Amino acid sequence: MTLTARQVQVVSRPDGWPESGDFQLVEVAVPELSDGQLLVRNQFISVDPYMRGKLNDVRSYTPPYQLNAPMDGGAVGEVVASRSPERAVGDVVVHQAGWRDLAVLDAARTRRVDVTEAPASAYLGVLGGTGFTAWVGLTEIAPVRPGETVFVSAAAGAVGSIAGQVARLRGAAQVVGSAGTPAKLARLRELGFDAGFDYHDRPVRERLREAAPDGIDVYFDNVGGEQLEAAIAALKPFGRVALCGAISVYNATAAEPPPGPRNLALAVGKQLTLRGFIVTSYGHLRERFDAEMAGWLRTGQVHYDETVVDGLEHAVDAFLGLLRGENTGKMLVRTAVGTATA
Amino acid sequence: MTLTARQVQVVSRPDGWPESGDFQLVEVAVPELSDGQLLVRNQFISVDPYMRGKLNDVRSYTPPYQLNAPMDGGAVGEVVASRSPERAVGDVVVHQAGWRDLAVLDAARTRRVDVTEAPASAYLGVLGGTGFTAWVGLTEIAPVRPGETVFVSAAAGAVGSIAGQVARLRGAAQVVGSAGTPAKLARLRELGFDAGFDYHDRPVRERLREAAPDGIDVYFDNVGGEQLEAAIAALKPFGRVALCGAISVYNATAAEPPPGPRNLALAVGKQLTLRGFIVTSYGHLRERFDAEMAGWLRTGQVHYDETVVDGLEHAVDAFLGLLRGENTGKMLVRTAVGTATA
Repeated sequence: MTLTARQVQVVSRPDGWPESGDFQLVEVAVPELSDGQLLVRNQFISVDPYMRGKLNDVRSYTPPYQLNAPMDGGAVGEVVASRSPERAVGDVVVHQAGWRDLAVLDAARTRRVDVTEAPASAYLGVLGGTGFTAWVGLTEIAPVRPGETVFVSAAAGAVGSIAGQVARLRGAAQVVGSAGTPAKLARLRELGFDAGFDYHDRPVRERLREAAPDGIDVYFDNVGGEQLEAAIAALKPFGRVALCGAISVYNATAAEPPPGPRNLALAVGKQLTLRGFIVTSYGHLRERFDAEMAGWLRTGQVHYDETVVDGLEHAVDAFLGLLRGENTGKMLVRTAVGTATA
Repeated sequence: MTLTARQVQVVSRPDGWPESGDFQLVEVAVPELSDGQLLVRNQFISVDPYMRGKLNDVRSYTPPYQLNAPMDGGAVGEVVASRSPERAVGDVVVHQAGWRDLAVLDAARTRRVDVTEAPASAYLGVLGGTGFTAWVGLTEIAPVRPGETVFVSAAAGAVGSIAGQVARLRGAAQVVGSAGTPAKLARLRELGFDAGFDYHDRPVRERLREAAPDGIDVYFDNVGGEQLEAAIAALKPFGRVALCGAISVYNATAAEPPPGPRNLALAVGKQLTLRGFIVTSYGHLRERFDAEMAGWLRTGQVHYDETVVDGLEHAVDAFLGLLRGENTGKMLVRTAVGTATA
C-alpha cells in the first residue's frame, strides 16, 4: 500500500502581500516508517502571523521556508502507525510538521496531549505556543502588576485575546484592546476587556487616549507601526512593552519600509523598556504555564476563540485571511477527514 | 554691600534649533542668606544635551525651563559665604544652580567634593552625572559582558567617551564609536576604542557593518535616528540598547517629527531589549560608581576630555556648539573670575 500525503509548499517569495500563486498543494508519497518514527494524521494545523516572516529569504529566529519543500508549523494529529514504543496508535500528538495532512515524524519530536482535558485544537492555541506567548509576554517580558493599565493590540487575535485575559488575572485594573471590526470589539467585552477601539478609527493615538486617559503601564504589541507609536505616547514612566509581533508591517515591500515610531526618543525620558521575544526561548517556564493556564481553563477564568477553515486545500486562504485580520481567536485549518486513506 | 549676580534666562521657546535670541543674560541682586544657606561662586557650569528638552514646554522627567527665570543645571563652585554649619567658606560644592555666576543655595542641596582627589570640573563630568550616566548604562541598563562587541554613538562626547572606556573595562572584546570629525575619531583611538567611523559618511549602517562585521551585542545610544536604526540592524540575538539620549532628533520641529527606526520590528525576532533611562533614577548605585570610577581615574584606566568655554556671557554659545557637536568630551563654561565681587 502506498500512502499519498498532501502538503503545501512555497513556490515563490512574495515582496509585499503574499498571493495564492506563491503556494502550491503538492501530493507526495509517504515514506516507510523507520524505527522510532510515527505516521501522524493531522487534525488541525496552526496558521500564525510569524509564518509571513519565513516567506522571506532572511534568516531570522527560524530559517526561512525553502522553495518547493514542505512548509512547517504547529499541528496536532492522531498517531495512525507507530514504530516507537513511546507512542501508540490512537495517541494524539502536537508537533511541527504542519501544512500537510499526513506526517512522518520521529516520536521524540512529538508531544502527547490529553484530549480528555481539552480538545486537540486547544493544544495549538490557548494551551500551545499561542497561549504560552501571551503568558510569557505579560509574566516575564513586560510583567503586569496589580492595579496597572494594560493595552493589547490585535486583541481579538489568538495571542491578543489570551494576553488580555492574562493581564486581568494578573490584577490589571484596566485592560484596553484594539481590534478591526465591531464584532471583534463586542467579543473583547465578553472576554473581560474594559475598553476597546477600532484601529481603523484614526488617529489611533487619540483613540488610545480616550480609552486610557491616565496612560498605560504595559503594552503587549502584536502589530507594530501606528499602534506602537500611540502606545509609546501613552506609556507612563517606567512603562514596559512586550514586542511580540508586528503584523502591520510584515507585508511592507522592500522598496517601502514601514515608518518606525517617530516618538521613540520619548523612551529615554519616560525610562521605557521595549523588549522583543520569541516564546521558544522561554521553555524553562513552560511547566509553570501549562499548570496555570490549564487551571484557568478548568475554572472558566479564561476563554478562547477559534476560527476554523476546513480542508488543507484552503490552508493558504486561511493564512491570507489571517494576514488581513479575518480571524477571531486562533486561526486553524481542519484537515479533511479521510484524506489519509489510500 | 549689594551683590549682583548674572544668570542666563530663556526668553522664547525654540521650535527646531535654538538661537542666541532665545536666551538673555540678566543681572539680578543677590538676596541675603537665610539660616542654612550658602552663597556659592560658580567655577564651572555644566552644559548638557538634555537641556534642549527643557526648552520645550513639555513636562518630561524634569519640568521645562520657565521663561524669564534662571535656568538650572549642574555646576561646581566655591562657598564664599555660609550660614550653615555643614559647609565652610572655601568648600567646593556641586549643585544644580547652574547658568549663573553666583548662587544662593540651601546647604542640603549641595554636595561637597574633594578637589585634592580630582579637579573641581571633574565632578561635573567623569565623576558626576556624566560619568555616572555612562556607567549606569553599561552596568545596569545594557550590561556589557566579557567578550562582547559594544557600539557607542557620540563617542567623543562627554558620556560617550566614558561609556566606551567603561565597556572596555567591563571586558568588551571590541568597542566601536561614532563621531563627527577626524580629530574626534583619532581621539577615540587614544581612549582605547578599537574602531570608529564618521557618522557623516553614510549610509551609517554600512559603516557600522565594516567596523563590526560580526554584529554588536550592546549599543549605547546618545543620538537616536539613523544610528539607532543602524544599531538595530547590527544587533545580535538578545542584543541590548541603553537609550540614553537622542541628540539627532532634539531639534526636529513640531511640524516635521524625525523618522523612527524603520526596522524596529527586528527587535521581535532578535529578542532585543531597548531601555531608556535617566541617571537620577539610579541613585542607589551612586556609591558603587563613585568608588569604581575614582579608582579607575587614580590608576589611569579612564581618561576624560573637557571643552571649556570661558565666561558666562558665552554659555549660550557653548550650548549651541554642544548641539552642533563642537565639543570633545565634557562641555563646560568657566565662570569668569572676579564677577562675584561687587
